[in-house]
Amino acid sequence: MSIQPVPALEPPYLMAVFTDVRTADETGYPETGARMSELVGANPGLLGHESARTPGGLGITVAYFRDQESLTAWREDLEHRSAMERGREDWYESYTLHVATVERSHGFVRAEH
Amino acid sequence: MSIQPVPALEPPYLMAVFTDVRTADETGYPETGARMSELVGANPGLLGHESARTPGGLGITVAYFRDQESLTAWREDLEHRSAMERGREDWYESYTLHVATVERSHGFVRAEH
Repeated sequence: MSIQPVPALEPPYLMAVFTDVRTADETGYPETGARMSELVGANPGLLGHESARTPGGLGITVAYFRDQESLTAWREDLEHRSAMERGREDWYESYTLHVATVERSHGFVRAEH
Repeated sequence: MSIQPVPALEPPYLMAVFTDVRTADETGYPETGARMSELVGANPGLLGHESARTPGGLGITVAYFRDQESLTAWREDLEHRSAMERGREDWYESYTLHVATVERSHGFVRAEH
């Protein structure tokens, strides 16, 4: 199956948007990214997550959570915290995190022909 | 200057996250994208906007607004509505829009050496 955006979800839910610009240091980054994806996916309140990166440019990762408890568990996860620490040391030139409550959501999927 | 994520902003503010997968139809898409970027930038309540796209994969665009009035003006802009209509006809396989109120934001910028 081809890639799809996370579909519209039933509000209210939470959304964490992480935007970043990387350094040139690739050491350990793909492995840690794969592990973080696995780890956040094990959070029972995770509704979905997705990322995009323009080559040589901005990366945007979005994770959707059912409630504050699930998001807090992810923020406080020790392995995640350790990865973010490593990120500040080695992998990121800069990043921003925006945490929000989603009030509206809608989606479009092209009809099959 | 090199690319930077939109920095952390003072909550509360609004955030519209648009995630999409494109068709192969490029006709008019870059020009319309540039025009939409110009148009949203002219919105006095726009705090910033940014996009990332994995080649052949997901695109994520985020726009940050000071208040609901600014976001509504953007949603109801006739040229924007016309572009979205064209998007559903030609440019998008699928997309999702999430509209949210941001409650927390923080950022990191690597220190100069």
